[in-house]
Amino acid sequence: MSKLESLVDLDPETGPNCYVESCPTRELLDHVFSRWGSLILGGLRVSRKRYSELRSKIGGVSEKMLAQTLRTLERDGLVVRHARPVVPPHVEYELTPLGRECAVRVAGLVGWIQSSIAEVTAAHKRYERARAKAR
Amino acid sequence: MSKLESLVDLDPETGPNCYVESCPTRELLDHVFSRWGSLILGGLRVSRKRYSELRSKIGGVSEKMLAQTLRTLERDGLVVRHARPVVPPHVEYELTPLGRECAVRVAGLVGWIQSSIAEVTAAHKRYERARAKAR
Repeated sequence: MSKLESLVDLDPETGPNCYVESCPTRELLDHVFSRWGSLILGGLRVSRKRYSELRSKIGGVSEKMLAQTLRTLERDGLVVRHARPVVPPHVEYELTPLGRECAVRVAGLVGWIQSSIAEVTAAHKRYERARAKAR
Repeated sequence: MSKLESLVDLDPETGPNCYVESCPTRELLDHVFSRWGSLILGGLRVSRKRYSELRSKIGGVSEKMLAQTLRTLERDGLVVRHARPVVPPHVEYELTPLGRECAVRVAGLVGWIQSSIAEVTAAHKRYERARAKAR
């Protein structure tokens, strides 16, 4: 390895960086920081689930978006699909070890959202009042 | 408060729940679990920033999406806008205490994405190989 290369390796500015549009992390960011991605990762944290269980747990998700997001997370190595060749087919989804690392952080943020919604709703009211006053 | 009401209050199933489509948390989830929301929250974590600084820090964000997302986060009470009436106008954005709580968790997940991208890229290759084999 040349001196320049080793210097480059040591520079945190040149490492993976979600703030750089062309960085491959941006694609993963889009998968994890998404409505359905977050709810699927959080929803699988406690236990593996059948497709139909996920579908009924995640309110408002369409068949298409659920299947597509599961496939994306499977390709990312965060979720593994277990299919048993029975009739009717039995398909379950489970987090991989990598997916569990991610899901713990996702669940922390989802939990924060749930516990902070009262404060956020109060902020909405303050914002609307301030806007009405400024008119 | 009736006995039924107090029982309802104690039931965690009836509290704020991102998995319920009609829950107000779902709107906040969409704001926080989004590409621009996450990058703005993470980008303000260390220090307040001018609009133009955010714009150049966050690769690929349009004027429209940056302004719109900042307004959404301001309405949610996560970001505060400081405008100084000078020419040219000097506008800075800063996290509120509530926003800092959120941003710490967002930054943890962004950091995880950055440190896991090599494993995810390896998973992509495994996935494509497995699909090619199955054809």
